[in-house]
Amino acid sequence: MKIIVAPDSFKESLSANVAAQSIIRGFRHVFPAAEYVALPVADGGEGTLDTLIAALQGDKVTLTVRDPLGAPITAYYGLLPEKQTAVIEMAQASGLMLVAPEQRNPMLTNSYGTGQLILDALSRGAKRIILGIGGSATIDGGVGALQALGVKFYDENQKLLGIEGNILSQIDQIDISCLDSRLQDCIIDVACDVTNPLVGQQGSAAIFGPQKGATSEMVIMLDHALNHYAELILQLTGHDYRHLQGGGAAGGIAVAVAAFLNGQLKSGIDLVMEALNLEQHLMDADLVIVGEGSMDGQTAGGKAPIGVAKLAAKHQVPVIALSGVLGDGASSLHTQGISALFSILPRLDTLEKVLGEGEHNLEVAASNVARVIKIGQSLSSEIR
Amino acid sequence: MKIIVAPDSFKESLSANVAAQSIIRGFRHVFPAAEYVALPVADGGEGTLDTLIAALQGDKVTLTVRDPLGAPITAYYGLLPEKQTAVIEMAQASGLMLVAPEQRNPMLTNSYGTGQLILDALSRGAKRIILGIGGSATIDGGVGALQALGVKFYDENQKLLGIEGNILSQIDQIDISCLDSRLQDCIIDVACDVTNPLVGQQGSAAIFGPQKGATSEMVIMLDHALNHYAELILQLTGHDYRHLQGGGAAGGIAVAVAAFLNGQLKSGIDLVMEALNLEQHLMDADLVIVGEGSMDGQTAGGKAPIGVAKLAAKHQVPVIALSGVLGDGASSLHTQGISALFSILPRLDTLEKVLGEGEHNLEVAASNVARVIKIGQSLSSEIR
Repeated sequence: MKIIVAPDSFKESLSANVAAQSIIRGFRHVFPAAEYVALPVADGGEGTLDTLIAALQGDKVTLTVRDPLGAPITAYYGLLPEKQTAVIEMAQASGLMLVAPEQRNPMLTNSYGTGQLILDALSRGAKRIILGIGGSATIDGGVGALQALGVKFYDENQKLLGIEGNILSQIDQIDISCLDSRLQDCIIDVACDVTNPLVGQQGSAAIFGPQKGATSEMVIMLDHALNHYAELILQLTGHDYRHLQGGGAAGGIAVAVAAFLNGQLKSGIDLVMEALNLEQHLMDADLVIVGEGSMDGQTAGGKAPIGVAKLAAKHQVPVIALSGVLGDGASSLHTQGISALFSILPRLDTLEKVLGEGEHNLEVAASNVARVIKIGQSLSSEIR
Repeated sequence: MKIIVAPDSFKESLSANVAAQSIIRGFRHVFPAAEYVALPVADGGEGTLDTLIAALQGDKVTLTVRDPLGAPITAYYGLLPEKQTAVIEMAQASGLMLVAPEQRNPMLTNSYGTGQLILDALSRGAKRIILGIGGSATIDGGVGALQALGVKFYDENQKLLGIEGNILSQIDQIDISCLDSRLQDCIIDVACDVTNPLVGQQGSAAIFGPQKGATSEMVIMLDHALNHYAELILQLTGHDYRHLQGGGAAGGIAVAVAAFLNGQLKSGIDLVMEALNLEQHLMDADLVIVGEGSMDGQTAGGKAPIGVAKLAAKHQVPVIALSGVLGDGASSLHTQGISALFSILPRLDTLEKVLGEGEHNLEVAASNVARVIKIGQSLSSEIR
């Protein structure tokens, strides 16, 4: 029996990798001779980097880059040598968690450090970059990252703008002539599961500005600046990115990548599944186990377990989900390819204790699911 | 597929009968054509009466008897006509819950009402009585019940003792010549899962006295009276019941039944399983589902799910347990015939909410277990 074990992390309790190992231990008690393929997954959000490095035995490349306020910071990304692919998480260099709460201000933060990570990956021969953009501190339209990669921005006085702060509102002209030429041979896939456009009421500044420290006045200014930026891009490329679905993700960096960096926006879980060769593994799999800290009726397309389940359903492989907790409407997930789903929670307890016992509870639940599978095997399939 | 659904009650949440129906509903979503046998069980404690009446479509016989303090009270017992069996619960007539906390005093309470229930069952032709003795208010050695059935007790002045209060300490002589003769053709099985003897440090007064309202002085007096009573029985019958295992249950009524009423002490769950013909149902069953509000490593032989599981294991029928919560060491129950076990708890919530949602949560858990069985059926049994 070949069992694909592809859990996401159990937030605040287990990494995806530890979760996969717990599930496998539980199953091994019952099916010691089965073949287990541990493919911990992620949804493209924070944590995707570590998950892919672990699952694909990638190399960790560590370097010093600029943080959102320009100070030096140590960041890393992953290299998957076999695939000439780099996995970069924007949060490593330009993340909101890198800025003290009282200093969060998207008029001052920029994405330069993320550009530096991309640059380093290019210098190591990356032909493809998977870019996770969750948790950014910035609303700079990706201008900082573009600067790190050679794009020049001028103000209305034809003065070259520097790399400090958020220069978005001052741009009058964009010069891409010095853009790093290696980008032409490199595809950038942006893991993006939000649908917000660059500008407007559902845009980057309006929706994500406040959580990044923007006042209402800043939201208006930033939205105006993003609009202006999109007009400049339209003049330069002939494409209007203002209403691109997902263009508002991570302060508009998705637009920069799409317009200038040979990039495209893709579903995070799809990118992860592709990187893991999940579909190929599914071809001859008998069973898939997925998991996540919490699943409910709102666990939608972008969530890792559902992405895996849909792909498994396409190949008629049954999927069992083990969740830390099940929220309202979790049963509706049966229509998304989840054949059966269980909470691993044994009893009422403090959240702290429950999170601390996640590894044990997951192993026990997995073992009991395996026991039921064995019971099912002992009953003829004629029996209904 | 024939599935035996034999849960106990989920305390404070679901009766055994409602639990059985919830499980069946859950399974029917997945196996609509299976044969379901609902056999809600009980462990011989309080609730056994209602469970057996429901499971066996028994008749409820209601009558007025004396409560533990002699006041009239309406009580009922069950008649299973086909089996000429009555099911009597001592708590109905002589229960601790019938006495207000400030009035609880085992020097004053007696078991007369329980004897009245037995008498009524005899008058309706019962040839066998299953007597549940959980939750009694009394430590009268069953003397009250014996009086109701015709036994006479005299004090040291050869004066006939009345039926008020607990006369245990005043008895000097026992006259069984007027004991109801129909008892000779009636077997009384006492559902008894405690092992405490009539007297001594582990005896009825010492262990159960305090919770029935006895002070330390009363405990000493009652233990002394029970010793004296056992000596009288020894003189009369030639049997020493002082250290009979379980003789201390329910204030010593078990000794009265054993000595004078053609009775025997049996495990509660064994009696229930026998009444339900469980073993016969197991002969051609494919699967058994048990359940209870809480299961843990201490869920021992006397508990209903384990009793069912052991009997099922004897017939090689797999058993899946669905529990409200799982306590420490629940996994050890795999050695007791429980093939797999799950908590039905979906998430952390208030106890009140969890108890209120038991029916829904049980149905959902059952349905998902059924789904995993179906997955197992789809995998060849060759696959390991």
